[in-house]
Amino acid sequence: MTPPHDSSTHEQPLYRRLADHYRQAIDAGVLAPADRMPSVRKLVRTHRVSLSTALQACRQLEDDGLIEARPRSGYFVRPKRRITMLPASEPDPGRLPAPASYVGIHDRVSDFVAKCEQHTTSVNLALAAASPAHYPGDALKQAMIRALRKHPSMLVDRALPRGHPDLRHVLARRALELGMNPDPDDILVTHGCIEAVNLALRAVARPGDTIAVESPVYFGLLQILESLGMQALEIPTSPQRGLSVDALELALQTHPHLRAVVVVPNFQNPLGCVMPDTEKARLIKLCERHQIAIIEDDTYGALCDDNQLPPALKSWDRTGNVIYCASMHKTLAPGMRLGWMTGGRWDARIGMLKFAQSRPNEALAQVAVAEYMGSTAYDRHLVRLRRKLKIQREHIAEDIARYFPPGTRLNVPEGGMLLWVEMPGQQSSTQVFEQALARGIRIAPGTMFSNADRYNHFLRLSCGSSYTPQMAEAMRTLGDIVTAAG
Amino acid sequence: MTPPHDSSTHEQPLYRRLADHYRQAIDAGVLAPADRMPSVRKLVRTHRVSLSTALQACRQLEDDGLIEARPRSGYFVRPKRRITMLPASEPDPGRLPAPASYVGIHDRVSDFVAKCEQHTTSVNLALAAASPAHYPGDALKQAMIRALRKHPSMLVDRALPRGHPDLRHVLARRALELGMNPDPDDILVTHGCIEAVNLALRAVARPGDTIAVESPVYFGLLQILESLGMQALEIPTSPQRGLSVDALELALQTHPHLRAVVVVPNFQNPLGCVMPDTEKARLIKLCERHQIAIIEDDTYGALCDDNQLPPALKSWDRTGNVIYCASMHKTLAPGMRLGWMTGGRWDARIGMLKFAQSRPNEALAQVAVAEYMGSTAYDRHLVRLRRKLKIQREHIAEDIARYFPPGTRLNVPEGGMLLWVEMPGQQSSTQVFEQALARGIRIAPGTMFSNADRYNHFLRLSCGSSYTPQMAEAMRTLGDIVTAAG
Ligand SMILES: Cc1ncc(COP(=O)(O)O)c(C=O)c1O
Ligand SMILES: Cc1ncc(COP(=O)(O)O)c(C=O)c1O
Repeated sequence: MTPPHDSSTHEQPLYRRLADHYRQAIDAGVLAPADRMPSVRKLVRTHRVSLSTALQACRQLEDDGLIEARPRSGYFVRPKRRITMLPASEPDPGRLPAPASYVGIHDRVSDFVAKCEQHTTSVNLALAAASPAHYPGDALKQAMIRALRKHPSMLVDRALPRGHPDLRHVLARRALELGMNPDPDDILVTHGCIEAVNLALRAVARPGDTIAVESPVYFGLLQILESLGMQALEIPTSPQRGLSVDALELALQTHPHLRAVVVVPNFQNPLGCVMPDTEKARLIKLCERHQIAIIEDDTYGALCDDNQLPPALKSWDRTGNVIYCASMHKTLAPGMRLGWMTGGRWDARIGMLKFAQSRPNEALAQVAVAEYMGSTAYDRHLVRLRRKLKIQREHIAEDIARYFPPGTRLNVPEGGMLLWVEMPGQQSSTQVFEQALARGIRIAPGTMFSNADRYNHFLRLSCGSSYTPQMAEAMRTLGDIVTAAG
Repeated sequence: MTPPHDSSTHEQPLYRRLADHYRQAIDAGVLAPADRMPSVRKLVRTHRVSLSTALQACRQLEDDGLIEARPRSGYFVRPKRRITMLPASEPDPGRLPAPASYVGIHDRVSDFVAKCEQHTTSVNLALAAASPAHYPGDALKQAMIRALRKHPSMLVDRALPRGHPDLRHVLARRALELGMNPDPDDILVTHGCIEAVNLALRAVARPGDTIAVESPVYFGLLQILESLGMQALEIPTSPQRGLSVDALELALQTHPHLRAVVVVPNFQNPLGCVMPDTEKARLIKLCERHQIAIIEDDTYGALCDDNQLPPALKSWDRTGNVIYCASMHKTLAPGMRLGWMTGGRWDARIGMLKFAQSRPNEALAQVAVAEYMGSTAYDRHLVRLRRKLKIQREHIAEDIARYFPPGTRLNVPEGGMLLWVEMPGQQSSTQVFEQALARGIRIAPGTMFSNADRYNHFLRLSCGSSYTPQMAEAMRTLGDIVTAAG
C-alpha cells in the first residue's frame, strides 16, 4: 500500500488516495464497524493534507457507504448489519415440478403491470435496470452524431447481414476477456438479448418441447417460452452456486426429452449468484452427454464488483453446444435495444431465423456503440458503473438488515443490480407488493419468478438507482409492511 | 393549363413550367411518339424565354424519358414501344397446388445469395429498393441530431411500450389518407414490416397451419412461413387485379382449415398490381364469412405514380379481422428498420408477442422519423420519389420492349419499383440469372417467387435506381441473353 502522503506521482487525486487508504483499513478490519474515524483535523495533521482534501476524502467514504456522520460526534465506520443475516435457503435438488404444472406467466405479469399503472410510483425498486444517469448518455450521443456525419447515407442504405462489421469486430475482441474467442463472422447482432434468446430457442426446439430453466427465473424468459408454445421445467437453483447441476441430472431421468437448458450463469436474475467454474464445467459435460443445447444468457456478467469478468460458460464449450447471448442493455445503453449472440452448431439456422424474423439490425446504433466500446472510455464507464451498483446494493442490503423482521434471509451478490429477499414468516409477496404500491413503492413479488407458487415469500429488489433519502425512507416503510404482514 | 409565358407569379421555375407544357402535349398525344420537338431556337422565340431556359426544359424532358436527342437532328418524342406488348398472362383460378407440394424456399434463396456473392455486380436489378440517393438521408440525419439534442437521455433510458407516442400519433394521422382511422394507441411500432408480419402470423396461426398467399409471392414471406413451420397455399394472382378472390373461394372448398391469408393489395411484389376496390371489398367479406384472418402488407402503397394513395384493405374492415402491416423501408428510410401495424382483434396478443420477441423499439429513430413524417417535407419527398420511380420504370419497360424477344409479356404497374417479365419461350430464369450474373448483372429469377416451379420463365426487375447509360447497356445485354436462351 502506498501511504497517501507519499510524494511520488500518482494518477489519482490526493483525496482519493486518502480515502482508499482508509477503505483498505476498514476492509481489513483494522477499523471495525462502529469505530470512530480519525477526526478531520487529525487527518490534516497526520497526512499533511489540506482541510478540503481531508473533507473530500471523508465525503467519498461516506458516499461509498463505508462511514457515516453522527451529529456532533464526527464519522464512524458503518456497521455491516447484514453480516448477521443468513443467505437465502438452498433448494432441495430433488424437488422438481412436473412441466404439466406449467400454467403460463403472462397473466401474472400483465396483472403486475396493470396494478403498477394504477398507482403513481415514487420509488421504483422493481426495475432490473440502472438509472439513466449511470450510463454514458452524452458520450453515446456524441458517438451517434459522429457516426451520422461520417456515414451520411447510413439511414437510407440497407443494413448489412448479421450486423455491422465494426461492432462485430469490437465484440469479438471484448469477448476475449470472457474466455471466448469468437470470429467476428460468428457474431450476430440482435435487438437485445431477448431477441437472441428467442432465436436460440427457435433454433433448437419446437412448440411443445420442454426447456429446462433456473428456479427462480427471470419472468421474461417464461414469457418467451409461453409465447413460443414451449414448456418450462424449473430446475432448483442455489442462491449461492446457481443452477444445480445435480438437480438437472436428476431431472433428466424423468425428462429424457429435454431439448435445451437456458441459464444465466453470471449474476443470475433474480438471485444474483455466479456459478462456480467447476459447476460450469460440469454443466457443459452433462449437456453434451445428453445432447441438450445450452442457451447462455450473459446479460449481467460485466457488472462484477471486482472488475474481474466471470468467464462465460461458452468458454468451456468445445463442440458448439452452447449458444451465447448477451446484451448492451444493462451495461451500456438501456435505450438502444442492442444485443448479440454466437450460435454454435446452430449458427446457420439462427442466421436464417434472424433474417426471417426481423432482418439485420439498423447500422447507426451499431457504429456508434462500436466506437464507444472500442475505446477505453467504455472500460472507465464499467468501472464507475460497477462501483455505483456495489454501493447501492450495500445500502439496500443494510436497510434490509435494519428494517426487515428478524429471520429475513439475504445473500448479497458480488455484482449485478438485484437482491433476492426471503421473508421470514409466510408473508405473501403479493400482499406486500400491493401494500407497498399503495405507498408509492414498486417492488417485484417473488411470484413472478416461477410458474409454480414457490416464491411467494420472496421479494426482488433492484439496486439500480442512486441511494437517496427518499429511498431510505421507502426501505423503512417496506420493512414496516413486511413486519406487519409476518 | 397555364401557358408557360404567362407572366402571373408561379412557384415553379420557368423551365419547369415550359417542360410541363410539353409534357402535357405528349401525354395528350398532341405530340405523338417519334414526332420532332420544336427546336430550341423555336422554343426561345415562341415562348419568349432565354436560350438557357429552353435548353433546361429540354433536358428535363429528356431526363424524364419523354424525348430523346438524335445526333444532329434535335429532339424527338420517345416512342412508347411497350404499348405493343401484352400484359403477363392471367392465371387459371382453378389451378391450385396442394400445400403438400410445399418444399420450402430457404434453400433456393440461399443458393441465390451464394451465387450473387461469387460475382461482382455492376448493375443490380434484383433489389426491391430504391437507391439511397432517392431518400431524404440528409434531412433524416438532421432530424436525428435534433432528436439527440432535444432528448439527451434517450439512448440510456428504456423505450416506451408499443412505440414512441410521437410516431404513433403521426402514423395515425397519415393513415387517414389510406381510409383507415386508427387510434394512436392501436398502433404498434415494429422492426420493419417483416417483424410485423411475423407477429401477425404468430398471433393468428400455429406451426403446421396452412396460410393462403399470393402466387407469385414475395419470397421473404415464404421464408417467414417456413421459419415458423407453417405451410403456404399459393392462390392464383392476376398481374392486373391481384389476388384472385374467386380462386381463394375455390381453395376454401378443398382447404376449409385455412387460418389466414397474407396479401399485398397495393403494388404487389413481384407483380406490381393493385387490387380493385370491388375485389378488396369481396375479399373482406369472404374472409369474414369463413373466419379467416387477413394479414395486409402495405409496404408499397405509398409509391403511387398519381399521388392518390390506393386505399388499404383495412379501410373496409369493420370487425377487426384485418391485421394491417406497413413499412418505412421502401418509402422513407431503408436503413432504419421501422415498420408498424394495427392488430385488429389480435391487438392484445400481438402486443404480448412483440414484447416477448424483441421488446419495444428504441425511441431515437422513431422520434426523428415522427418529426420528418409530420412535416410537409415528407409529402414533397414522396412526390419526388414517385416521379423518379415512374421515370425509371418506364425506361426499363421500354428497354424490355426494345431488346427482349418478340412475345415477351409485361404489364407496367402504376406505382412501386418492380417489373414482372414473362419470357416468351420456355427460357429458364435460373439460366438467364446465371448468365446475367456472369456479366455483372443481378436479376431476380422467377423461381424465387413460388414454392412450386411455376415461374421459371419469369424475371423480376427492379426499377429502384436512376437510369444510367450503364443500365441501358445492361438491359441490352439482358435482352441478348434472353433472346439467345429462347
Ligand atoms: C436475464 C435477463 N436476460 C435478458 C434481459 C433483457 O435483455 P435485453 O434488454 O437485452 O433484450 C434481462 C432484463 O431484465 C434479464 O434480466
Ligand atoms: C411485400 C414486402 N413486404 C415486406 C418487405 C420488407 O419490409 P421491411 O423491410 O419493412 O421489413 C418487402 C421488401 O422487399 C416486401 O417486398
